[in-house]
Amino acid sequence: MSRSSQRSDRRSRPQRDRPTPPEESNPSELPTGPPPALARGGLRVFALGGIGEVGRNMTVFEYEGRLLVVDCGVLFPAEDSPGVDLILPDFRAIEDRLDDIDAIVLTHGHEDHIGAVPWLLRMRPELPVVGSRFTLALVAAKCKEHRLTPHLREVAAGDRVRHGEWDCEYFAVNHSIPDALAVAIRTPAGLVLHTGDIKLDQLPLDGRLTDLAGFSRLGEEGVDLFLVDSTNAEVPGFVTPERDIGPVISNMFRDTSGRIIVACFASHVHRVQQVLDAAAAHGRKVCLAGRSMVRNMGLADDHSLLNIPDGLLVDIDEAMRLPDDKLVLVSTGSQGEPLAALSRMARGEHRSITIRPEDTIILASSLIPGNETSVFGVINGLTRLGATVVHQGNAKVHVSGHAPAGELLFLYNAVRPSNVMPVHGEWRHLRANAALAVRTGVPEESVVIAEDGVVVDLVDGRAAITGKVEVGRVYVDGLAVGDIGETTLGDRLVLGEGGFIAITIAMDAKTGRAVSRPTIAGRGFSDDPKALDAAQPLVEDELSRLENENVSDPHRIAQGVRRVVGRWVADNYRRRPMIVPTVITV
Amino acid sequence: MSRSSQRSDRRSRPQRDRPTPPEESNPSELPTGPPPALARGGLRVFALGGIGEVGRNMTVFEYEGRLLVVDCGVLFPAEDSPGVDLILPDFRAIEDRLDDIDAIVLTHGHEDHIGAVPWLLRMRPELPVVGSRFTLALVAAKCKEHRLTPHLREVAAGDRVRHGEWDCEYFAVNHSIPDALAVAIRTPAGLVLHTGDIKLDQLPLDGRLTDLAGFSRLGEEGVDLFLVDSTNAEVPGFVTPERDIGPVISNMFRDTSGRIIVACFASHVHRVQQVLDAAAAHGRKVCLAGRSMVRNMGLADDHSLLNIPDGLLVDIDEAMRLPDDKLVLVSTGSQGEPLAALSRMARGEHRSITIRPEDTIILASSLIPGNETSVFGVINGLTRLGATVVHQGNAKVHVSGHAPAGELLFLYNAVRPSNVMPVHGEWRHLRANAALAVRTGVPEESVVIAEDGVVVDLVDGRAAITGKVEVGRVYVDGLAVGDIGETTLGDRLVLGEGGFIAITIAMDAKTGRAVSRPTIAGRGFSDDPKALDAAQPLVEDELSRLENENVSDPHRIAQGVRRVVGRWVADNYRRRPMIVPTVITV
Repeated sequence: MSRSSQRSDRRSRPQRDRPTPPEESNPSELPTGPPPALARGGLRVFALGGIGEVGRNMTVFEYEGRLLVVDCGVLFPAEDSPGVDLILPDFRAIEDRLDDIDAIVLTHGHEDHIGAVPWLLRMRPELPVVGSRFTLALVAAKCKEHRLTPHLREVAAGDRVRHGEWDCEYFAVNHSIPDALAVAIRTPAGLVLHTGDIKLDQLPLDGRLTDLAGFSRLGEEGVDLFLVDSTNAEVPGFVTPERDIGPVISNMFRDTSGRIIVACFASHVHRVQQVLDAAAAHGRKVCLAGRSMVRNMGLADDHSLLNIPDGLLVDIDEAMRLPDDKLVLVSTGSQGEPLAALSRMARGEHRSITIRPEDTIILASSLIPGNETSVFGVINGLTRLGATVVHQGNAKVHVSGHAPAGELLFLYNAVRPSNVMPVHGEWRHLRANAALAVRTGVPEESVVIAEDGVVVDLVDGRAAITGKVEVGRVYVDGLAVGDIGETTLGDRLVLGEGGFIAITIAMDAKTGRAVSRPTIAGRGFSDDPKALDAAQPLVEDELSRLENENVSDPHRIAQGVRRVVGRWVADNYRRRPMIVPTVITV
Repeated sequence: MSRSSQRSDRRSRPQRDRPTPPEESNPSELPTGPPPALARGGLRVFALGGIGEVGRNMTVFEYEGRLLVVDCGVLFPAEDSPGVDLILPDFRAIEDRLDDIDAIVLTHGHEDHIGAVPWLLRMRPELPVVGSRFTLALVAAKCKEHRLTPHLREVAAGDRVRHGEWDCEYFAVNHSIPDALAVAIRTPAGLVLHTGDIKLDQLPLDGRLTDLAGFSRLGEEGVDLFLVDSTNAEVPGFVTPERDIGPVISNMFRDTSGRIIVACFASHVHRVQQVLDAAAAHGRKVCLAGRSMVRNMGLADDHSLLNIPDGLLVDIDEAMRLPDDKLVLVSTGSQGEPLAALSRMARGEHRSITIRPEDTIILASSLIPGNETSVFGVINGLTRLGATVVHQGNAKVHVSGHAPAGELLFLYNAVRPSNVMPVHGEWRHLRANAALAVRTGVPEESVVIAEDGVVVDLVDGRAAITGKVEVGRVYVDGLAVGDIGETTLGDRLVLGEGGFIAITIAMDAKTGRAVSRPTIAGRGFSDDPKALDAAQPLVEDELSRLENENVSDPHRIAQGVRRVVGRWVADNYRRRPMIVPTVITV
C-alpha cells in the first residue's frame, strides 16, 4: 500500500482532505477483486502488511487449505495517522480460518516482525509460535505484558522442522539483532525461501555469518519463489562491517574526559556490546537507561549473547556519584522520541542529568525517515547547551542492518530463483529490488511486485498475481483496537490544522424557538478572546431568519448556523476550523 | 531559537504537552535580559530571525541611533506549528523605531530572505528596499500581490552606495538563484561583511563567480565582523558545479522515449535553463507548470537571465497534444506539497495527466528536512503507477546552493576576519561553522554564537554578546497575523492527536437545575458511534450529585463533568481527547 502523504503543505493552504484510500489510484496491473480458488497443487502467498510500506510485516502462505504465517509485526504511525500508537496487520483475510494456521514463524525479534503477535494470539491463544531462542525470549516478554502464555517452539539455524503440513528449514542470517533466521518452506508446489530482514556482514561481531552456502545449496535444489528484503535496495554497494563501529566508539572514549552518553536501538545487542567493550577498555562504568534497553540487555545476557565484564554495570544512583570520565550512559531515545530521556536532556528538563559543554553524546543509530525533525531537534538542543553531538552524519557510528544493492546481488546469484517477490519496503524499494533481480538474470515476467493484500499463486513453477484480498490499516490507540478509521483520522487532521468553533443553541422542544442567546466558543482557532465576537450577531440573525421561516428541525437549524459561521470565518480569516453546531432541546 | 520537536512519539504515548518556550532551556552562556545602552562609537547587531533556525532571515544593524536591516524573510512551519501558513520575523524590537531604519538590504530573492518584506512595508511603506535587479523584480511581484508599491533602489555587484548613514558595498556571490549579493557595511565602528546565502561554484552557469578577490581586498582592509552562512557547515567538501547537472539531465532526455516531467524549485533559473537546453537538444518542447514557476521564469526572461529558444515553450493545451517523446513538463511540487500538480499525479488525481509506466519523473531538487514523508510519498505513488523516478538519491540531478565546509574555509582564509558570527542555521550548523572559523585561525573568543534576539556589540574591534531582545514566533494563518500563539497551537496539537469530546448541558438559570439530558458527542475520538454511550449515565450521575449539593455555578458544573468524563475516557480508552463541557443557561 503506497502511503499517501497527509503532511501539511508548506507552500500553500493546508490540505484538509480526508486520507485517500490507496485503492483510488490503483495501477492497472494490480487486481482489485478476490482471487479465484487456488489451483490444485498450487501455493498461495499474500501479505497482510509489510509490502508497499516499511513495517507490520506479515506474510501468509496457503497450501491445500492449510496456512503458515511468517512474521506478525507492527507499524509505527506517521503523521497521516495522528494520535495513533500502532498500526497492526489486517487479520480479516484469515480471521475465519484461524484453525487452518499450523504455525507462526518469526524470523527475528524486531517490533515490525513480532509486535502484533499478542493480537493474533488473542484470537487463537494456542497457535504455535516458532522462532530462534532470542526471538522467542523477546516474544515471551512481550506476551507477558499482555498476560498471554504463548506456545513457543524453538528452532535454530540448520534445523529442518515440520509444522503441521509445512516442512521448514532455518538458515542463519545477520541483521541488527542477534539470532535472526531465514526460512525455506518446502511444499509439493515448490520451494520458497523468505529472507526476513537480512544483510551479509562478512565480519559479524558474533561470527554468525549469513548462510550463503546454505542458500547456494537451496539454489542447487531449485528455489521456485524467493521473497527478498527490499529495505536498502536503492542504496548502492555494501554495508560496512558492524565490527568497524567499535574502534570509532572506543577512540571517542579514549579522547574525551567528559561524560559520555550513547543512544542506540534497545535491541541492538552487538552495538551495546561494542560500547561495553570500549567502556571497559577505557576505565568507564556503564549505566543502562530506558525500560526496553534494560529489559532487552537482560534477556541478551541470560542467553549469553552479551558479554558483560564483572562490575562494569552500575545503576543510575551509583552512576550519578561517578566522576564524569568514569561513566557511560547507554540510553534509548535515538529517534528523538519526546518522552525519552535524551529528549528531556536536550530540552533541559531531565530530572537528574543536566547537559554541560564537556558532555559527548553519540547517536549510534540510523535516522528513520519521518523522524528527522525530532532527531535534529534533539541534536540542536544538546548542541545549544554546548555538548558535542556525534551522529552518523559526522562519524561512522552506525551501519544499517539491511542488505544494499551489492549484497542483494550476492543473494540473487547464490539462490538463482525461478520467481522473485520483493518484500519489506515501500514501492520505491520494491521496484529497485526487482530491477536487481532482473539484472542477475531473473526474467522480468518472473519478478512479481505485489503489495499488501495482493495474492500471488505459485502454480506449475510459475508465480503470478491472481487477485487481491482486502487489507486496510488497523489502528491501536490506547486500549482500543479497530475503532479508529478514516473518519476519526480525517477529523483529527482537520482539528489539528484549524481547531474548531462550537456554537451551542438551546431550543424549546415545543415551540422550536431558541430559549437563550447562542454561545460561540473556539479551541485551536485563535489566541484572541474576542476573535469570535463578530460572529455572534450573524448566528442570532440566522436563528431569527429560521424562526421567521418556521424552521424548527434541530438538524436544519444546525446546518444553517454551520453555513453562516463557516462563511464568516472563511471570509474574515481564510481558515477552515471544524464548525460544530449543537442544538439542544429543552 | 532551537526548535523543540512536537512530533508524536512513535514508540510510546503521544506527547500532549504544550510547546516548550525555548527560553526554559537557556544555556548559561546566553543572556536573558536586555542589553545596556550601546557604547558610543559601537556597532550593534541582532537577528529577528534566522539564527538558531533555517528561515525568516532578518538581521538588524545599529550605529549612532540609526538602523539598517539585511533581509526580511519567512519561515515555513514544521509540525510544531500545525495549520500555520508562515512564520514571520518578530518586529517588536524595532517597531517603535521604524523611522530610524535607513534601508532594508536584500541579498537575494528567496522567500526566506524577502518573504516578510510586505509585512514590514505595511508598517512603514516608504522604507527604501535595496537589492539587485532580479531580487527587486521578485520583491515587486510579491508586493503587487499585497497591493503595496515599494520604494525600490537597485544596486549591482561592485556598487558602493550610501543608504542614509550606511556605507554599503555589494559583491557578487553565487547561490541557487541568480543575482545574489553579499554586502559589506562600513561604519566608524568597523567593517562588517555579511555573506547572505553563498557558495563558491567555480564554473557557474552564468559565469558570475562569487567575488573571492573582492573578499580578499576587504580582508586586506580588515574585516571586523564576518557574518557567514552556516547552512552546510556540517557537510564536508565542495559542491559539484551546477554545470555538471546539465549533462545528467540531457543524457536522460536522450535515453528515454516517454514523457518527461522535471520538478524543481520555482526560483532556480539555472536549473530550468539546463532543462530548456536539454529539451532543445533532444527535440522536445517545454511546458512550464505551476503559478510561481510561470511567474518567476517570466521575470527571469524579462531580465535576460533565461535564454529561451524561439518556439520552445508551449502552453498546457498544446503540450497535451504533443507525442510523449516531444514533451518536457517543468513543474513545482518537488517537496511533495499535497496540492501541487506532482502530488496529484502521484495520487492518480490529476485532471489531465495520468502517469504511465513509460513516464520519467526527475526531482531536480533537494529534500528539505521535514519533507521526507511527503516527498517519499510522491515517489512511491509515481513508482507504484509504474513510472521511473529519478532523484538526488539515485542520480546527480541536484546540487546545493550553500557552501559546505571546504568552501567555507576558502571564505575564512580570504576574509581573515577579526570576529565571526555564524548566521543562517540551526544550532548544529552554527557550531560546525564556528569550529571551521577557529580552525582557520580565528581566536575562539572572537567567534560569537548567537541566536535570534541575542545582541552582539562590536566595540573597539571586539565583538561580544551584551544582552537579548525578545524574539518570538509570529504566525500567519490565513488573513490574520499574530493572533495565534502557544495556546492555539497547544490546543491544535491536543486536538490533532486525540480529537475532542463535547458535553452540552442546558441549565435553568433560576433553579440551577439541568433542564434536559446532557448531550455527549465526539469528533476525532472514535469511528464507533456508540463509543460514548457509556459515559452518558456517568454525566447524569454527576449532575445529580452536583444538584444534591446545590451546586449551580455553571463553571463548577462544567469542571465536575470534565473530570468525570476525563477519568472515564482515560480508564476505558487510555486516550486524552480534549474534554469540552458547555453549560448553557436558559
